[in-house]
Amino acid sequence: MQTWKAAEPAPSLWVDARIATMAKHGTSIEKGAVVVQNGRLAFVGPESQLPKDLPKDIRQIDCGGRWLLPSFIDCHTHLVYGGNRAMEFEMRLAGASYEEIARAGGGIISSVKATRALDVQQLVEQSLPRLDTLIAEGVSTVEIKSGYALNIEGELNMLRAARRLGQMRPIRIATTWLAAHATPSEYKGRNGDYLREVALPGLHAAHAEGLVDAVDGFCEGIAFSRDEIALVFDEARKLGLPVKLHAEQLSDLKGARLAASYGALSADHLEYLAEEDIPALVQAGTVAVLLPGAFYTLREKQLPPIGALRRESAAIALATDSNPGTSPLTSLLLTINMGATLFGLTVDECLAGVTREAARALGISAETGTLEVGKAADFTVWDIDRPAELVYRMGFNPLRARVWNGHITSTLMAGEI
Amino acid sequence: MQTWKAAEPAPSLWVDARIATMAKHGTSIEKGAVVVQNGRLAFVGPESQLPKDLPKDIRQIDCGGRWLLPSFIDCHTHLVYGGNRAMEFEMRLAGASYEEIARAGGGIISSVKATRALDVQQLVEQSLPRLDTLIAEGVSTVEIKSGYALNIEGELNMLRAARRLGQMRPIRIATTWLAAHATPSEYKGRNGDYLREVALPGLHAAHAEGLVDAVDGFCEGIAFSRDEIALVFDEARKLGLPVKLHAEQLSDLKGARLAASYGALSADHLEYLAEEDIPALVQAGTVAVLLPGAFYTLREKQLPPIGALRRESAAIALATDSNPGTSPLTSLLLTINMGATLFGLTVDECLAGVTREAARALGISAETGTLEVGKAADFTVWDIDRPAELVYRMGFNPLRARVWNGHITSTLMAGEI
Ligand SMILES: [Zn+2]
Ligand SMILES: [Zn+2]
Repeated sequence: MQTWKAAEPAPSLWVDARIATMAKHGTSIEKGAVVVQNGRLAFVGPESQLPKDLPKDIRQIDCGGRWLLPSFIDCHTHLVYGGNRAMEFEMRLAGASYEEIARAGGGIISSVKATRALDVQQLVEQSLPRLDTLIAEGVSTVEIKSGYALNIEGELNMLRAARRLGQMRPIRIATTWLAAHATPSEYKGRNGDYLREVALPGLHAAHAEGLVDAVDGFCEGIAFSRDEIALVFDEARKLGLPVKLHAEQLSDLKGARLAASYGALSADHLEYLAEEDIPALVQAGTVAVLLPGAFYTLREKQLPPIGALRRESAAIALATDSNPGTSPLTSLLLTINMGATLFGLTVDECLAGVTREAARALGISAETGTLEVGKAADFTVWDIDRPAELVYRMGFNPLRARVWNGHITSTLMAGEI
Repeated sequence: MQTWKAAEPAPSLWVDARIATMAKHGTSIEKGAVVVQNGRLAFVGPESQLPKDLPKDIRQIDCGGRWLLPSFIDCHTHLVYGGNRAMEFEMRLAGASYEEIARAGGGIISSVKATRALDVQQLVEQSLPRLDTLIAEGVSTVEIKSGYALNIEGELNMLRAARRLGQMRPIRIATTWLAAHATPSEYKGRNGDYLREVALPGLHAAHAEGLVDAVDGFCEGIAFSRDEIALVFDEARKLGLPVKLHAEQLSDLKGARLAASYGALSADHLEYLAEEDIPALVQAGTVAVLLPGAFYTLREKQLPPIGALRRESAAIALATDSNPGTSPLTSLLLTINMGATLFGLTVDECLAGVTREAARALGISAETGTLEVGKAADFTVWDIDRPAELVYRMGFNPLRARVWNGHITSTLMAGEI
């Protein structure tokens, strides 16, 4: 992953914080302190245990009893794309049929057309406001998938745009090759040809250019079969790339089992996941990434098997699924509210789902996602009395400060905190 | 209504705008212009018809083809209150029963306790961040109800705080006396005594102080009966104050019919409204105010009778219902997304519901809510290609400029638009 370039961050000392380290269930520190050195967490603990040998000129910030949490991580997005689907949204509400919408140029095809029409710089320009919206809520890391160009050069351009976003802003971008997202009209009915001629050679090209952190697919009746996904995963394995999968969103095709058999980082959506397939996920260390924004937008009724996931101690993450068709969502705060309200996740599950477990879903747990010594200094300070407020409110952002790799980046920090 | 004090706004000319006047269904102007003089709309129409005699030194702003709409109006909120209910939200998700929550001090009683503990200035301080969040989305007007103190002085303080908010920010505040919101524990089982000793004398005191723009009640099995509400409405009538009602949220008590019989401005919630009661609302000119945030938070299944409201050409508004218990929501953009997604309202119904119809629900249609010559210059400029984008996206704010009574108030206007 490429990252924002800036001068080495100055050391800093954050005092009088209430700290939710998210390192394990319910860990919180009253009257806590954090020391940042070389962009890493050098100390996280009670003020009373602060090391005595801190640099004399260290910048000290008084958090005034505010809560300090790991920065949020959005581990599943399609943030880079061209155009939007507001017209289709409007038509559907006005009672248009899917046929009428398709005739008017709607559906995923419209996003493919709009995405193909843009060069890398234009993709960046259209995506940057979405990224900035996530950053404004304290997000440190965003996963971005290809999958709306569906030809080699266009898919590469999407990930080039994703990389460029990571150079323009203090944010960690994880890129995912998702050419197996849909079949473009020129390959209609010829999934195999599309994979052989576009998805697989494109993956090699993207990998050679350093554009791929992981490989994803959409396993569904309207997309790709298990066997087709296996072709893609085999290629990823040859390249040493981790995999993940859009699985069991609309039906139970046993995609989660397939993902687990490849040791996938995550299986995502999972509304139709069968309870008996959960142990395979757990054993493989595959995170269940739930996407309530798509569930809400599609007015789905089938809930993911939350109770069974809990009983099996499956790792659960939450993400925006930010995309133009089924989840035009750019707020992780709203996502966790939906996780609680629509899926019945607890406050702790919601917060872990966008910190610790989201880091696990991206394979970057050693780097970020919890507040532990040695990890990146990615944290946020909030104007709240208890972390539950972040889940409880809708459309309210109490972010006070954002620190990314040790850099104080939030404009809200302009004055004293 | 008291308003923000500032110097007389300078005249301004807004050109190259696409304008949705919202004056009637589907009215939009390509290559439009707006002239602001003395804080009012002096011209709204195509650039080609601009008057020739504009002041030479008028400030001209190029909208660059962006959309210009009436500012949003939030016509139903409980924005002023003390504390929050995040603890209770957290407990409920963790599986606590209502009894356990009540024992832990949860429920509306906790908001009453927290509200009574604050003086006017403290109420203002706790409510201001919520108001600022609405303003950041271009809201011009917010209705604020009392109803969380449930004693005379506390109810007055809530509305004093509401008035003070209107002096601190460029916003129009409409105040509503809602002592008939719940019965405080000291009057448990004695609704009549509470109304006679608190709600009615308090209304007189509040009215004498200029704190009341309208009178509201909560007609529900867990709150007040029709007969009790009628006592309150009779008193409002004596004072010449318009009424409105929380009706048919959880059951069909025929509150909407009662409201209509008093010529109410609005009947609000209405999930359980019977179709046969709609004509009475229409005849009385009573607006149906729908509150999808509460519907969502409570995971209600019963939808308001949207189809029947449409068939009867009822006026439909949408509002946040911003409150600490059932709708901790401070975004009208999210509210209209919910109106579309959860209630199936069309884009035009959603946008009218927070502009033209919301103004009607507050009885201020002559002043604001549409872009028509003579009304207040309350408008917003958005970075969008079509108004539907405002409804379609979740957690994204494309506001480019906000004009309130002719004042350019949005910080986003610091540079050139
Ligand atoms: Zn996805
Ligand atoms: Zn209400």
